Amino acid sequence: MIEKLTIKTDSKILLLVLDGVGGIPKNGKTELETSKTPNLDKLAKDSMTGLTDPIFPGITPGSGPAHLSLFGYDPVEYQIGRGVLEALGVGITLTPNDVATRGNFATVDEKGIITDRRAGRIATEENMKICALLQSNIKPVEGVKFEITAGKEHRFVLVLRGEGLDDRITETDPQKEGALPLECKPIVPEAEKTARVINSFVSQIKSILKPPANMVLLRGFAKPPAISTMEERFKIAPAAIATYPMYRGLAKLVGMDVLDTGPTIADEINVLKSNWQKYDFFYVHIKKTDSYGEDGNFESKVKIIEEVDSYIPKLLELNPDVLAITGDHSTPAMLKAHSWHPNPFLISSKWVIPDAAQRFTELECAKGLLGRFGAVHSLSLMLANALKLSKFGA
Amino acid sequence: MIEKLTIKTDSKILLLVLDGVGGIPKNGKTELETSKTPNLDKLAKDSMTGLTDPIFPGITPGSGPAHLSLFGYDPVEYQIGRGVLEALGVGITLTPNDVATRGNFATVDEKGIITDRRAGRIATEENMKICALLQSNIKPVEGVKFEITAGKEHRFVLVLRGEGLDDRITETDPQKEGALPLECKPIVPEAEKTARVINSFVSQIKSILKPPANMVLLRGFAKPPAISTMEERFKIAPAAIATYPMYRGLAKLVGMDVLDTGPTIADEINVLKSNWQKYDFFYVHIKKTDSYGEDGNFESKVKIIEEVDSYIPKLLELNPDVLAITGDHSTPAMLKAHSWHPNPFLISSKWVIPDAAQRFTELECAKGLLGRFGAVHSLSLMLANALKLSKFGA
Repeated sequence: MIEKLTIKTDSKILLLVLDGVGGIPKNGKTELETSKTPNLDKLAKDSMTGLTDPIFPGITPGSGPAHLSLFGYDPVEYQIGRGVLEALGVGITLTPNDVATRGNFATVDEKGIITDRRAGRIATEENMKICALLQSNIKPVEGVKFEITAGKEHRFVLVLRGEGLDDRITETDPQKEGALPLECKPIVPEAEKTARVINSFVSQIKSILKPPANMVLLRGFAKPPAISTMEERFKIAPAAIATYPMYRGLAKLVGMDVLDTGPTIADEINVLKSNWQKYDFFYVHIKKTDSYGEDGNFESKVKIIEEVDSYIPKLLELNPDVLAITGDHSTPAMLKAHSWHPNPFLISSKWVIPDAAQRFTELECAKGLLGRFGAVHSLSLMLANALKLSKFGA
Repeated sequence: MIEKLTIKTDSKILLLVLDGVGGIPKNGKTELETSKTPNLDKLAKDSMTGLTDPIFPGITPGSGPAHLSLFGYDPVEYQIGRGVLEALGVGITLTPNDVATRGNFATVDEKGIITDRRAGRIATEENMKICALLQSNIKPVEGVKFEITAGKEHRFVLVLRGEGLDDRITETDPQKEGALPLECKPIVPEAEKTARVINSFVSQIKSILKPPANMVLLRGFAKPPAISTMEERFKIAPAAIATYPMYRGLAKLVGMDVLDTGPTIADEINVLKSNWQKYDFFYVHIKKTDSYGEDGNFESKVKIIEEVDSYIPKLLELNPDVLAITGDHSTPAMLKAHSWHPNPFLISSKWVIPDAAQRFTELECAKGLLGRFGAVHSLSLMLANALKLSKFGA
């Protein structure tokens, strides 16, 4: 519906995502509450705030769906298969025809029975050598090419590139040891070719591999979702500034220009500044809040939040028409994992009603005028505050 | 789902809609915050409050969809075409068979090319004369009658009344000058007759009209949506008290009895009082909060809110079982237009939990127990508080 209402304007939107920023208290205070954030505090006082659910209350999202939601795509409607996320995560660009899958190197005995699903967790360097060997020896099958990219330890990503591919095929990984790898079977008739191609791939590579990594197990076959770009949907020219491949890949998937950046927050802000005239929607991603959350490193997560706070004046200097700050999901250091807790959300523009929130924290944003809402509506709110949406009906 | 739960009772519901009442701050206070509203303040303290979204967060609604939502109809499911809204706006009653469209008088040169899409914005009086002339000269086509009603300046509404009409036809307005008016074409085979009728209408009127208004351009063909009445859906006997044609027409569309009223708020309250025994659901519409919002007249919007406040004791004297007060959408004077901001909502009944809100304002209602919710659920809340809804499941 929003697609029909969007209008092209010169106004600029800046979306700053602090990955996994939400937390739960340690010694009575969350990461955000513990942080000294004078700039965010001041901004919060002049903003409208609320709490968002990436999917539904209680649902812990992966980074893929959580980000899609922030980009204005219903993550239940647009599900991204595991293989596609893995491919994006190692920096592979996919076209709509490709099928991607995650793979494990594994050890099988002389009867072909799996004795180690992870091939003894071979070193990443060894994995890279094996992948290079496979890549130079593997032959296309029925016009389909194979692209093999090493991941960490025993993991890799396989991308099939060719015509007539379909991801509705069964996995070859039995997910247990003491069993034979499974034959790949089509789930629908349209996928018969893809299943043949996969089985041919497996038999080819068996003759190349040597123990301990003498077999591959494949799962999570997926095509990129048929998805319209943010420009098509929302009439914006979007750019992404993110350091990690998966977020860059996700941004590319929805048609953002992915800008080159160095690894630090300072690098990202500089890239933002030097590209400010070229786009009207900027997605800036801060990864380390999530990484430290996953590590259970409460103190370092606090430090990153404080570092981000120190850059807020630089963002405001750009004078965005709309500045939205939020997390994609929560990653409480106390939980060492993504969580289902709602995300603090802040939006600043000329058209907001400054509300009761005095800080950018979970509890303060709970006082906000925006209440609790689906993160998928975040983009509508940004567009509305940028006066980029016309009226629905008359 | 609600339809299956409604039960007929004697309890009475009063819904007071202050059109466009929500605002954004000027000198730190919104229109509602600036207003002196002792009666609303007292009521708010004893009520349950919240904030509603007419459609979704970020979406600015027109009055049509915003009101449908308050009447318990999903405005995305029941979309009302432009022609129907225009017809309602000039006070025309439509039947389900009719097709309505908005029209412009335009000027064309001797080759038929449009030189002025608005015929020099002819005076409304001139427009009325032309419409009367057309009405008395136009002949029915294939059993279809034409009803032509003047609007303001160059605008008019055309209603086709007859059997077998379909609104899936193309517009004749090319929406630019220097082009020929377009032929009307059917989009689906079922609409062939309607397209023929429209083209015949246009060729008839061409021989009657003289410059500068020597052509018509038609767009927004629409049939009234197939919609069940509020009585059918909710087992209530509803009455509408509104001064503006569009709101009266919308109310009629959902099966309300539309009561005659004078133009003032006092008139409306008197009509309410004298009809109090005859119905069990009353929709009272205050237009001027929106009009002054659209004008950017903050002070006059404040005055209207204060005037409404002065009538609250009269409403309470009627002793409604449920009194709900809200806006259909926000119209901040600072924005001079409808907006996407959520609407303050207040509900008073014997069965509420009085909450933290101390006033009927945006920020106070944000503290309310109802939180932020879709306006389409407002009616369920009213019915529930009137004990007009049975249990869902056992």
